[in-house]
Amino acid sequence: MVTAILVAAGVGKRFGPNTDKLFLEVAGRPVVGHTWARFDGIAEIDEVLVVVRSGMESAFAEIASSLHLRKPWRLVPGGAERQDSVWNGLKATREDCELVAIQDGARPCTSPEVVRATLEAAREAGAAVAAQRVTDTIKQSADGQWIERTVDRSVLWSVQTPQTFRRAVIVRALEEVRGRGAVVTDDTAACEWIGQPVRLVESRWPNPKVTYPGDLPWIEVLLGRESK
Amino acid sequence: MVTAILVAAGVGKRFGPNTDKLFLEVAGRPVVGHTWARFDGIAEIDEVLVVVRSGMESAFAEIASSLHLRKPWRLVPGGAERQDSVWNGLKATREDCELVAIQDGARPCTSPEVVRATLEAAREAGAAVAAQRVTDTIKQSADGQWIERTVDRSVLWSVQTPQTFRRAVIVRALEEVRGRGAVVTDDTAACEWIGQPVRLVESRWPNPKVTYPGDLPWIEVLLGRESK
Repeated sequence: MVTAILVAAGVGKRFGPNTDKLFLEVAGRPVVGHTWARFDGIAEIDEVLVVVRSGMESAFAEIASSLHLRKPWRLVPGGAERQDSVWNGLKATREDCELVAIQDGARPCTSPEVVRATLEAAREAGAAVAAQRVTDTIKQSADGQWIERTVDRSVLWSVQTPQTFRRAVIVRALEEVRGRGAVVTDDTAACEWIGQPVRLVESRWPNPKVTYPGDLPWIEVLLGRESK
Repeated sequence: MVTAILVAAGVGKRFGPNTDKLFLEVAGRPVVGHTWARFDGIAEIDEVLVVVRSGMESAFAEIASSLHLRKPWRLVPGGAERQDSVWNGLKATREDCELVAIQDGARPCTSPEVVRATLEAAREAGAAVAAQRVTDTIKQSADGQWIERTVDRSVLWSVQTPQTFRRAVIVRALEEVRGRGAVVTDDTAACEWIGQPVRLVESRWPNPKVTYPGDLPWIEVLLGRESK
């Protein structure tokens, strides 16, 4: 059994205090609706768990009903940090769940191909992540105003989601992180704590996360091509 | 006077030996045709120099004629390395040229707004570059297969083109690099050699370079929105 965990419990701080970026309308739907519909359409996935903030349940139920979903889904309460939300999602998986694909709710363009490829790689290697080679020159700047130095980009990869794991692997990794009172911002970083290797799976189609308000117009363009 | 130097003398090695990515058709035009048309349309630019490989002159003249350009342009012979091509472009600028915007020919989506913003910043600071904050998690992987470690992304910027300079600044910087027999892969790196600070100018619209064949479909989507 394969479970998708959509992490949709965060508040995008860069959009200002009163805006939940997951609910911004883009290409005819809230951002998180695109993400959800995409995972609902992938045959290899058996169930979708959506991790949400307390008080948001009815808003998500409304999205679900507008999407005419085909797969079983459940809402799971979010936690204080991203890793707590992921942990709650993992605890809510069924006993026979073998693989989990953990996806940012605010990443609506992820291609079904790359999701499938991470599932295959994680089945084999234990852990895998959608990633893109860094092709632009990378510079370091502490103040965001002036360049300090050039960074060697040839060994750098930009990692996205899904971050996909054998369930036993990510449970053990997050147990280790939590037991030591640490905080990780992505789930593959938890694997580094238990020496679990993580496979890179190259994403060919852009796979952006809605981060700044200025991202919406071009994400709309990317989504529009497929939603028509 | 402001001059744009379009660097269009390279061969994209990742496309295979017989494909020149600059001439791939996308959204109804060769890639470099989009780049050229974009700079032709920016009022602040007075002249466009296109640096091309020997033997390609007639192909570029044909593109020029199909674009119905409004601005004066000239073709300039390319060199062995990118920095040699840029150098040839600089030598071909007119005496009264004050600012140069150096642009990758294979970067067709650059917004006029970011070009203008680099011109303003370079006029003030001497050197400026279009850049985007790194928003995805960055991992190091020497083999491109397995993650080695997480890199602190908070100080990282992805730099693109245009790289825009007061002409005297970039001439002095490249003289220094060339005099020492060094090779730099981007022009702001040359500034580091003479202690010239470089200003980051945030690009809001995606500004990708055609690097892999898989980039073309989504670049077509980005261009299509504007070309219709």
